[in-house]
Amino acid sequence: MLISDLGEGGLLKLIQPYCLPNTIGDDGAIVHPPAGYELIITTDVLVDGVHFSDRTTTAFDVGWRSVAANLSDLAAMGATPLGITVGLSLPPTLPVVWLEGLYQGMQACLERYETGIIGGDLTRSSVATVAITALGAVRRDRVIARSTAQVGEAIVVTGYHGDSHAGLQLLLDPELGKADLQGHQQALITAHQRPQPRLDILPILDRLRSATSRALTISGMDSSDGLADAIVQICQASKVGARLDRSTIPISPSLSQIFPATALASALYGGEDFELVLCLPASSALELVENIGRGAAIIGNIGRSPDIILIDDLTDEPPIQLDRQSGFQHF
Amino acid sequence: MLISDLGEGGLLKLIQPYCLPNTIGDDGAIVHPPAGYELIITTDVLVDGVHFSDRTTTAFDVGWRSVAANLSDLAAMGATPLGITVGLSLPPTLPVVWLEGLYQGMQACLERYETGIIGGDLTRSSVATVAITALGAVRRDRVIARSTAQVGEAIVVTGYHGDSHAGLQLLLDPELGKADLQGHQQALITAHQRPQPRLDILPILDRLRSATSRALTISGMDSSDGLADAIVQICQASKVGARLDRSTIPISPSLSQIFPATALASALYGGEDFELVLCLPASSALELVENIGRGAAIIGNIGRSPDIILIDDLTDEPPIQLDRQSGFQHF
Repeated sequence: MLISDLGEGGLLKLIQPYCLPNTIGDDGAIVHPPAGYELIITTDVLVDGVHFSDRTTTAFDVGWRSVAANLSDLAAMGATPLGITVGLSLPPTLPVVWLEGLYQGMQACLERYETGIIGGDLTRSSVATVAITALGAVRRDRVIARSTAQVGEAIVVTGYHGDSHAGLQLLLDPELGKADLQGHQQALITAHQRPQPRLDILPILDRLRSATSRALTISGMDSSDGLADAIVQICQASKVGARLDRSTIPISPSLSQIFPATALASALYGGEDFELVLCLPASSALELVENIGRGAAIIGNIGRSPDIILIDDLTDEPPIQLDRQSGFQHF
Repeated sequence: MLISDLGEGGLLKLIQPYCLPNTIGDDGAIVHPPAGYELIITTDVLVDGVHFSDRTTTAFDVGWRSVAANLSDLAAMGATPLGITVGLSLPPTLPVVWLEGLYQGMQACLERYETGIIGGDLTRSSVATVAITALGAVRRDRVIARSTAQVGEAIVVTGYHGDSHAGLQLLLDPELGKADLQGHQQALITAHQRPQPRLDILPILDRLRSATSRALTISGMDSSDGLADAIVQICQASKVGARLDRSTIPISPSLSQIFPATALASALYGGEDFELVLCLPASSALELVENIGRGAAIIGNIGRSPDIILIDDLTDEPPIQLDRQSGFQHF
């Protein structure tokens, strides 16, 4: 059955069960902001053929990834989700099962992070487009910004980098369909298809703050556009530089096993790992990394010089200057 | 110059001046909700070839209309805007002047209602798509919902209906380019191209509440999908019926002059007039209509029977049962 067979009324009936109760039915949805909290709002648009395709992404995964990208932006600001709106444009020739898969994927990711759909719009288009806006809340004194990193602070990443990009490479490989997937390959593909926004880091940061006698300002962003891009953006916004140690960049066993030659490039420039890149005083950074566990690492320090340099103590290779050039450009 | 010539960095530089200061630059924008207020969030998607086309709508008007539609949804909930996010998908072959016109139109409408752009996303697509999410605030006891209309209440519309649809008919008329536009024709076209969200009604409602000894619950929605659709939706949500008087439906002098035969159909089913349809006690309704002035009218009453009937006292024509069938269907 196609979208056009169902009609607008049928479509709305299909979508309604995926929305939180008592949110749909008026011109807008009502949100109750907790007193003393800031609201964070973030928007992401995914377009068929640009951000996903049938070749690499099922409808379920498109749903999961579109929600994950938005929740990751909230996590990057220190905010807990209050809900999302979904602005959907669909070709009338699209099969209804695709739409169901999309909402099932969105719901699976939303339920995992204890939030839901509170509104949206549905319209016809020649290209399937998913525009999601997420709303979150964060205590006024706990907002994570890019522009507040201080000289001397440690740079922490919350997990492995490069797996998502490597997983996409595998999905685009025409030989792969014939091969038996090994554990490492499947792990990389899963990293690409089901990224996990790091909302689980927020309670760890709260405990860290409670245990610290002074007020603890944490700076940072997510690494959705690549680890190098995140560090460059934080440095530019904070008017500082950074010195990173190549050997500390967390690369998963799967990535080094399957793509030994390109693992570092994937980690720096691959993007879509949806980890957090955080800057904070060195003593707290060490405790943070220990509390996060697997994949988390201190990868360098914020410096006064505007340079952003990757050094290699192990092999004596010359330092590399990081930039945003190699990242994903939309136009 | 085309979008593809400018590149992503150039595009962001072009867009940034249109955003409110200190909102862009992090993974999400920060919004300060006023204490004791509810937040309202609403999303609208406009697609090239579906909701607008070069034939009837300049880039400026696409921008104006996309903002107006969202602000109208906020007004319909009783909420004052806090800001919007813009999720934009653009073909690389689009001229840059179109993008500039779009943002100029959005800004003109936003400035008129004292709000602005606080975030967004920008991506490539084969179809220009504008997905806007608007955020607003309303005092907890002043939310306007569809589901609270009471038997005996008067139904008020805040202005003329049918002009926008008539304006679109004129724009689609191939003869019109050759003709000299008269005042009435231009008025209808302007109604289509530059709809005015009725945020100006909210302070009038506040004064009405202050002047009323009892708590005043006002129900309703906007008439973006047509006046008949709005009344049917309010009645269904409130589990009531309505009796409308044909002679009271406000039709502008321009509409009755240019389209005498189809004026009523345009008013009932045309849509995109972005007026408010409000239900409240009869005594307050009269005062409201007097305070709004031009075009505002009491068009009927909420009744116990589930029927929604348009009666005609002047010509003794048989009553018409209203439904949503004739409204705009997206699929």
